[in-house]
Amino acid sequence: QLCPLEGAPECENCSKVIRLLLYPIKCTVITADTSFSLTPEIPKGVVIQGNNSNPASEKFRRVRNWSITKYKYTKQALSEKLGRGSRTVDLDLEPRLELLKDDRQRYENVTSLAQTLASQLSQLTVTQKNLGDAFTELSVKTPTLHLEFGINADAQRFLSKSGETLTEAINAFTSDMNTLVNKTIEDTMINAKQYETVRIEYDAFRVDLEELNMGPRDAVTVPKLEQAQKDFQTQREKYEKIRDDLSVKVKLLEGNKVKVLRNQLWMLHGAFAAHSLSCQNFLEKNIQEAGEHLNNVSTDVPSFLEES
Amino acid sequence: QLCPLEGAPECENCSKVIRLLLYPIKCTVITADTSFSLTPEIPKGVVIQGNNSNPASEKFRRVRNWSITKYKYTKQALSEKLGRGSRTVDLDLEPRLELLKDDRQRYENVTSLAQTLASQLSQLTVTQKNLGDAFTELSVKTPTLHLEFGINADAQRFLSKSGETLTEAINAFTSDMNTLVNKTIEDTMINAKQYETVRIEYDAFRVDLEELNMGPRDAVTVPKLEQAQKDFQTQREKYEKIRDDLSVKVKLLEGNKVKVLRNQLWMLHGAFAAHSLSCQNFLEKNIQEAGEHLNNVSTDVPSFLEES
Repeated sequence: QLCPLEGAPECENCSKVIRLLLYPIKCTVITADTSFSLTPEIPKGVVIQGNNSNPASEKFRRVRNWSITKYKYTKQALSEKLGRGSRTVDLDLEPRLELLKDDRQRYENVTSLAQTLASQLSQLTVTQKNLGDAFTELSVKTPTLHLEFGINADAQRFLSKSGETLTEAINAFTSDMNTLVNKTIEDTMINAKQYETVRIEYDAFRVDLEELNMGPRDAVTVPKLEQAQKDFQTQREKYEKIRDDLSVKVKLLEGNKVKVLRNQLWMLHGAFAAHSLSCQNFLEKNIQEAGEHLNNVSTDVPSFLEES
Repeated sequence: QLCPLEGAPECENCSKVIRLLLYPIKCTVITADTSFSLTPEIPKGVVIQGNNSNPASEKFRRVRNWSITKYKYTKQALSEKLGRGSRTVDLDLEPRLELLKDDRQRYENVTSLAQTLASQLSQLTVTQKNLGDAFTELSVKTPTLHLEFGINADAQRFLSKSGETLTEAINAFTSDMNTLVNKTIEDTMINAKQYETVRIEYDAFRVDLEELNMGPRDAVTVPKLEQAQKDFQTQREKYEKIRDDLSVKVKLLEGNKVKVLRNQLWMLHGAFAAHSLSCQNFLEKNIQEAGEHLNNVSTDVPSFLEES
């Protein structure tokens, strides 16, 4: 099957751009002062009627329409980037999307910090375990300091164990935060990108229609205007549908996000509180037991000078 | 002033060894089967009487005595290393010194682990501070999660501050442990090395005397024996003095060490307990305040679906 563009003559001025657009088409040459207004004249009667049953022709029509839309899109996107022209702004949705993007970055930052914290805590627990073991050996080896080395051995070993539990809790937090950021929010972000594409397309057709409306009305322009009006309406419906869908999705995400975060944040605080409480209880008991031991057995060995 | 050894003829067999020893002296040649028994014949009447007032001669005598002692020392140390001969063992002091050496290694290990712990904890507190700051910003930015981000921000910032205090306490511990290991114990270890040198010298003279005692007694050997007896006595007194001094020092160190360690170990445990207690108190208060806030103001914003 032959490509509909195959064998189409190239524009004399700028062959490549033309190949992407339509045949027959005349491209305005890029000059110094209009370097960013590469506007080919759209050929009259671009809409080919549906009664054309030739599949190659149908394909050609679709490719042509796609090309027109892409061209309009690029032109609109470019003029928006350069601060020219106008763009449709949804005053409810777009600030929400901006907020979401900013939130997302902040959540990513928090997640990364929590990940670092978990990894540092994990290393710390290993050191505490080793220190606990070293204290245990010294406790066995040093009868005169059995109690003191022992109490520190127990403390470090307990802190290490409790630290491991805390590390797991932080890891659970970062894992759920990653899901929120990279799955839940990302999903809506993909929709937001689609929305932005459709919005630019819609604005392109809107600007076209406005330009035609401002021009003279004659036998040539009136059918053009009617077609532009039709295209605009189609794009508008498409735009409004995707905007409404996204708006619902963003609001649902906002609610969902708050619930997930509330849960995660309480869990995180709870994990630190539980760690603190268990350490505090253990160390208090540890000191108490040592105190009782000190009262029962006087560990004060008389000094060498007192002995002699 | 002329060096007393200047111009002294060298031994025909092994000039260098002779230069370090005495003139006139005859060196036994090292043969394959007696490779480790390089024993020069000590010349008769090596003890020069004190009435010799010539300073050069006096110097010569001292150098000669020093050389003999050094030679005997090397011979004794070598035969001990090869598991030959006998050595004097102080059954009270030497096990104490071995214990001290082992303890020292263990204290070094504990100090190094504590140093690692302090450094890891210090890094952890930096991450906690940053996490606290990130939560604070989110708390300000997110009215619906103001409380939840706020409570975590306060928690992390407090834990960071308390962690810094704990880090300082661990650093104080390692600093005092370093003093104990590298100053207090090291000082005794230097004395122990001096003791070991004197002990080998003493053993060298003791072995010499024993060998002479086992030999025949005639006009030649009896003065030698008398001299060896005198030398042995001198070395013995020297050895016993340094041994007793070291023994006192080691016993004092043992007492001192126990006191220093007991203090340090209680302080270390106390620092961890204080950290745990302050964190526990803060987090409990933090949760209580948040609970009161939750009771006063219902922060449950109705969900988007409930709103509509």
